[in-house]
Amino acid sequence: MDNNFLLQTQTAQELYHNHAAQQPIIDYHCHLDPKMVAENHRFRSITELWLGGDHYKWRAMRTNGVPESLITGPESSDWEKFEAWAATVPYTLRNPLYHWTHLELKTAFGIEKRLNPETAREIYDACNDRLQNDPDFTACGLMHHYNVEVVCTTDDPVDDLRYHRQMSASGAKFSTRMRPAWRPDKAMAVEDPAVFRSYVDKLAEVAEVEIHTFADFIDALQKRHDFFHDNGCRLSDHGMNEFYAEPYTEEEIAHIYINVYGGSHLSDEDIRKFKSAMLYIFAVQDYASGWVQQYHYGAQRNNNSRMMALLGPDTGFDSIGQCHTASAMARFLDRLDREGHLTKTILYNLNPADNEMVATMLGNFQDGSVAGKIQWGSGWWFLDQKDGMERQMNALSLLGLLSRFVGMLTDSRSFLSYPRHEYFRRTLCNLLGNDIEQGLIPFSGYEEKRVRQMVEDISYYNAKRYF
Amino acid sequence: MDNNFLLQTQTAQELYHNHAAQQPIIDYHCHLDPKMVAENHRFRSITELWLGGDHYKWRAMRTNGVPESLITGPESSDWEKFEAWAATVPYTLRNPLYHWTHLELKTAFGIEKRLNPETAREIYDACNDRLQNDPDFTACGLMHHYNVEVVCTTDDPVDDLRYHRQMSASGAKFSTRMRPAWRPDKAMAVEDPAVFRSYVDKLAEVAEVEIHTFADFIDALQKRHDFFHDNGCRLSDHGMNEFYAEPYTEEEIAHIYINVYGGSHLSDEDIRKFKSAMLYIFAVQDYASGWVQQYHYGAQRNNNSRMMALLGPDTGFDSIGQCHTASAMARFLDRLDREGHLTKTILYNLNPADNEMVATMLGNFQDGSVAGKIQWGSGWWFLDQKDGMERQMNALSLLGLLSRFVGMLTDSRSFLSYPRHEYFRRTLCNLLGNDIEQGLIPFSGYEEKRVRQMVEDISYYNAKRYF
Amino acid sequence: MDNNFLLQTQTAQELYHNHAAQQPIIDYHCHLDPKMVAENHRFRSITELWLGGDHYKWRAMRTNGVPESLITGPESSDWEKFEAWAATVPYTLRNPLYHWTHLELKTAFGIEKRLNPETAREIYDACNDRLQNDPDFTACGLMHHYNVEVVCTTDDPVDDLRYHRQMSASGAKFSTRMRPAWRPDKAMAVEDPAVFRSYVDKLAEVAEVEIHTFADFIDALQKRHDFFHDNGCRLSDHGMNEFYAEPYTEEEIAHIYINVYGGSHLSDEDIRKFKSAMLYIFAVQDYASGWVQQYHYGAQRNNNSRMMALLGPDTGFDSIGQCHTASAMARFLDRLDREGHLTKTILYNLNPADNEMVATMLGNFQDGSVAGKIQWGSGWWFLDQKDGMERQMNALSLLGLLSRFVGMLTDSRSFLSYPRHEYFRRTLCNLLGNDIEQGLIPFSGYEEKRVRQMVEDISYYNAKRYF
Repeated sequence: MDNNFLLQTQTAQELYHNHAAQQPIIDYHCHLDPKMVAENHRFRSITELWLGGDHYKWRAMRTNGVPESLITGPESSDWEKFEAWAATVPYTLRNPLYHWTHLELKTAFGIEKRLNPETAREIYDACNDRLQNDPDFTACGLMHHYNVEVVCTTDDPVDDLRYHRQMSASGAKFSTRMRPAWRPDKAMAVEDPAVFRSYVDKLAEVAEVEIHTFADFIDALQKRHDFFHDNGCRLSDHGMNEFYAEPYTEEEIAHIYINVYGGSHLSDEDIRKFKSAMLYIFAVQDYASGWVQQYHYGAQRNNNSRMMALLGPDTGFDSIGQCHTASAMARFLDRLDREGHLTKTILYNLNPADNEMVATMLGNFQDGSVAGKIQWGSGWWFLDQKDGMERQMNALSLLGLLSRFVGMLTDSRSFLSYPRHEYFRRTLCNLLGNDIEQGLIPFSGYEEKRVRQMVEDISYYNAKRYF
Repeated sequence: MDNNFLLQTQTAQELYHNHAAQQPIIDYHCHLDPKMVAENHRFRSITELWLGGDHYKWRAMRTNGVPESLITGPESSDWEKFEAWAATVPYTLRNPLYHWTHLELKTAFGIEKRLNPETAREIYDACNDRLQNDPDFTACGLMHHYNVEVVCTTDDPVDDLRYHRQMSASGAKFSTRMRPAWRPDKAMAVEDPAVFRSYVDKLAEVAEVEIHTFADFIDALQKRHDFFHDNGCRLSDHGMNEFYAEPYTEEEIAHIYINVYGGSHLSDEDIRKFKSAMLYIFAVQDYASGWVQQYHYGAQRNNNSRMMALLGPDTGFDSIGQCHTASAMARFLDRLDREGHLTKTILYNLNPADNEMVATMLGNFQDGSVAGKIQWGSGWWFLDQKDGMERQMNALSLLGLLSRFVGMLTDSRSFLSYPRHEYFRRTLCNLLGNDIEQGLIPFSGYEEKRVRQMVEDISYYNAKRYF
Repeated sequence: MDNNFLLQTQTAQELYHNHAAQQPIIDYHCHLDPKMVAENHRFRSITELWLGGDHYKWRAMRTNGVPESLITGPESSDWEKFEAWAATVPYTLRNPLYHWTHLELKTAFGIEKRLNPETAREIYDACNDRLQNDPDFTACGLMHHYNVEVVCTTDDPVDDLRYHRQMSASGAKFSTRMRPAWRPDKAMAVEDPAVFRSYVDKLAEVAEVEIHTFADFIDALQKRHDFFHDNGCRLSDHGMNEFYAEPYTEEEIAHIYINVYGGSHLSDEDIRKFKSAMLYIFAVQDYASGWVQQYHYGAQRNNNSRMMALLGPDTGFDSIGQCHTASAMARFLDRLDREGHLTKTILYNLNPADNEMVATMLGNFQDGSVAGKIQWGSGWWFLDQKDGMERQMNALSLLGLLSRFVGMLTDSRSFLSYPRHEYFRRTLCNLLGNDIEQGLIPFSGYEEKRVRQMVEDISYYNAKRYF
């Protein structure tokens, strides 16, 4: 894993080192904990940093026959967990975890050794030494180290954003700006009436409004939307199984709201109508505020009910779902476009079988007002690896304009995930380098400048202009 | 983009230049305007030729942030539109438009410069000079230039085929023969009763029969089918969201017909039954006349209702749909096979996620009567590019017999699209060349002759024998 | 097709020859006829061996325009059929049949000539000479030649396993052990009440129990399950269109059973409930016996009703189906996991569009108890070729742990299919070799040993440990 890792051609190497690698990072979607950023968290060990919440690693360990006690068990020590991970690492060859692990060791800690049972203790001690003693090895120190200009967290409308305010009050102390992002999934999760009711009550409290009707509910959300806007939010995000664009009337939705808040279990049809209404209203709010809206769809979550009861969500028991959502997606976007409410939009699919559908959906709603107004998000979650990125970039190239792509985001819970931007940029430059050396892309004069600019654009400038 | 563009191996180069490039073109499915052919249309400018109706380019321009006025607006001049396109071209790198554009400039106009803002005016003037002053730069001149032996247009049953008759009356004047193809989509479009009724009335008029019942309706269609046959048609084509093979009775269909003609909106179930009946009847008619039938399925059309109202269909607002049509497809073909009415058939899917399903469907109905009786159509629309063609040819190779493939068609609205055949043939030869140089295909003696013949067959002879 | 066929790098060659090629074969799922094994069948001709039941070849011949009489017709001689196949072979270039055919000729018969019309007679005679005169060219002789350690056939619960018992009684006479596998598809096939009833009656007879109720039916199946276990079975297999995990009550199932046994046609909903119950009960039985369970889903069978009537099932008229079964698959596995009844499981999908879904499903139910407890089966049927294998191994690598993969099986009806293991192993080594030479996999010290061991594990040891 030398300087030219993933860069198969000289052209790729030159594009990467002279253009891509020079750019700062705009991490416009992630799941970092704002508290850890604002308080500039210091990590007690590489185990906390790597294995504290990374369900990718947990899944690999379970697959490798590691018992749960050594993965998430409170009874195991940091060293025991690290040791179990180190023994798993050589079994992850060809999985992105193998490359990520070593990119992180190299770029954060300067460790070029390969992690395996023979090196585990040495690497464990070396990492911990830096984490515990080097003043730069903190949450913000790492972000500075990786040249992160902006990071957008993922926040619920009822969140008080205290850490974002604290961070922003601290002014120029940190080189990275942290902004909130609006993720109102719970406001449309009406499957469990009791959970929904308690969410509404919480919303009423933080928004300081009484919520009796659906209109009150939307007003409260709009107040929080304004509050997020005032605190620097310019971006929403939605996690959905699929898109919803059922026909409904306002009366129906008002009625459904009263029913579910009152404790009634809704029919599937009513759930879909309610979600259709909420998605639309959220989108109109985002348009009015000039935000970018993001849709992550297609996961099948919490498949293991035994482990859900033990560990809760986001612990490694989700997988790629299957749905036919092209029609609903089009109807949803069409209504917004027709009514003049379609804001800049990023669509993320989880099942790569949907790639071409999504890649061609963009063009239906590009209106010439902004280059790349409708975006196809970079390979997400399971697809956030070389093959997934290449398939997304190839399909986007063939079916849309790669040159207008806003590029990479980490979508991560870890402060060590920034090398994924390096991974992405190397992959991008490698694709272009191969094409150039095969004569598929001209590389002289005007076009050479365009290619060089395109690398910088996709690495940084497109996102900077877009957000 | 030199002589060996896309040809990565010497073997590929040799196969292409000595075999593929020598063959004439049989363009068995396109959307050229018969009037322009018959009248040997002369183009006022490269803008008319390139940007007059090419929704691929329009989509790219919208994605690139070009306002609609410079794309389809009557207020913009030919030069202004061309200039906007030229500024977009460098942003299409990695999109097939980039290669198509330069292949067209090179093979039609002999222009090897790359189109970008710096060369736009020079190229614009050079093209227009040829179009306006060179007697060979006409609709038919271009087809002659590209060695097009036959072209099959796409025509509605109510069409009077006057241009085909005019063309055929003109005899040996043109080197390209133009034949009609039967596209009866409107005869099964019963979603809008008023539109359907007016179509039936038009049909009655041109067929010169009174249509009171479903049986009359079918008789009228048969009369037109005969008329098309008499005018050289040997090919039908159907554009469908998916396949339809619902059970129905003749009484039901007769009743549904009366209802929809009478103005009633049909239930989804009745629509599917009606379409099922029509697909079957069309197929029986084609079998009786010894025609080839084609099915293009899987597009999701007219997604942008705002632009549909402004510009109408086929203006760049369609995308790849999602459906599970394998069962219906099999039931449809099985009924025809069982009843002895299955004619030669070409299946085209738009979503590449369906590739393997379609590739294996063919084998279910190959009956040994004709080599390659059931065909999988070449990469269509969004898939009509190097990656799409390669995926189709690779899947066909692995799951069927590539050697029996009838190969490329343009499916185009432009007289400049013929280099797509060159693109296809280069891609084919490149695949074979790579396989040969990797030792996957033997290349001496009997097998060498077979490979050379296969290149010629897929480029030309298979289609010639099939149609 | 020399010694380094498919092995593009030196590393791949070294890994293959020194590690993969050395391993015995565990063919844990196939469709060989136990009678032919137990009786050590001698083949009258290469036609019997190659064309007696191989529907892959039949499909290719039909596609190539060969009339049915020369494929399955009793009126044609062995030579005539062989000649028709030999004429088709050169048309199968790029289809796996081409490579399989020549690998089989080379590894079984030592024939390196290419099969085509010019060599057909010579090859026919040479093969037949060996088959008729060489004492090693028998069913068991071929298995010995290919170093097959264990073969698991596919058997119905009503089967008396006489050939397995005969084989096992014959002791050390053969080097290959033959074990049965439990395939109870017919016990959940309730679409045709008469067929189901006759199956139940047959089951009652062989199990020597009276079956009046659903509970009796399950008891009888359990008796057969025990009988299979006593005869060495440790593996079940299920062929299904999709997964079934509908909610049901025991009363409902008891009632549905009575209805269908009594001759009533069931509603779709009842069929799905019944299948859901049966799948669950089979899985609990397998868990109790410590077996491995296999699920092959996603075929669309018997699409050609005319040929079904003539030739019956498994004659080349099946294709790749389409379904969304991710939710049902997860619910099915989750119930078993939650109730502590989830045994080692192998999932096989037929549509490669499902690859990533299945690859990520595994991780939901890996529980750390056994490395690679939930497996994704190797490319199956139409996907059992270089591209299908590569896509499966690549997706497994990226989304799971390739290192824990139990590897290849033939799933074949032919005693000549064992070179498919060689094909698989070459493909595996080639993938690894390419990665190593591109610097994607480290290859020195600890990791080099790991890679070498991984090749042996996937070729042999993982399966040996797993079963």
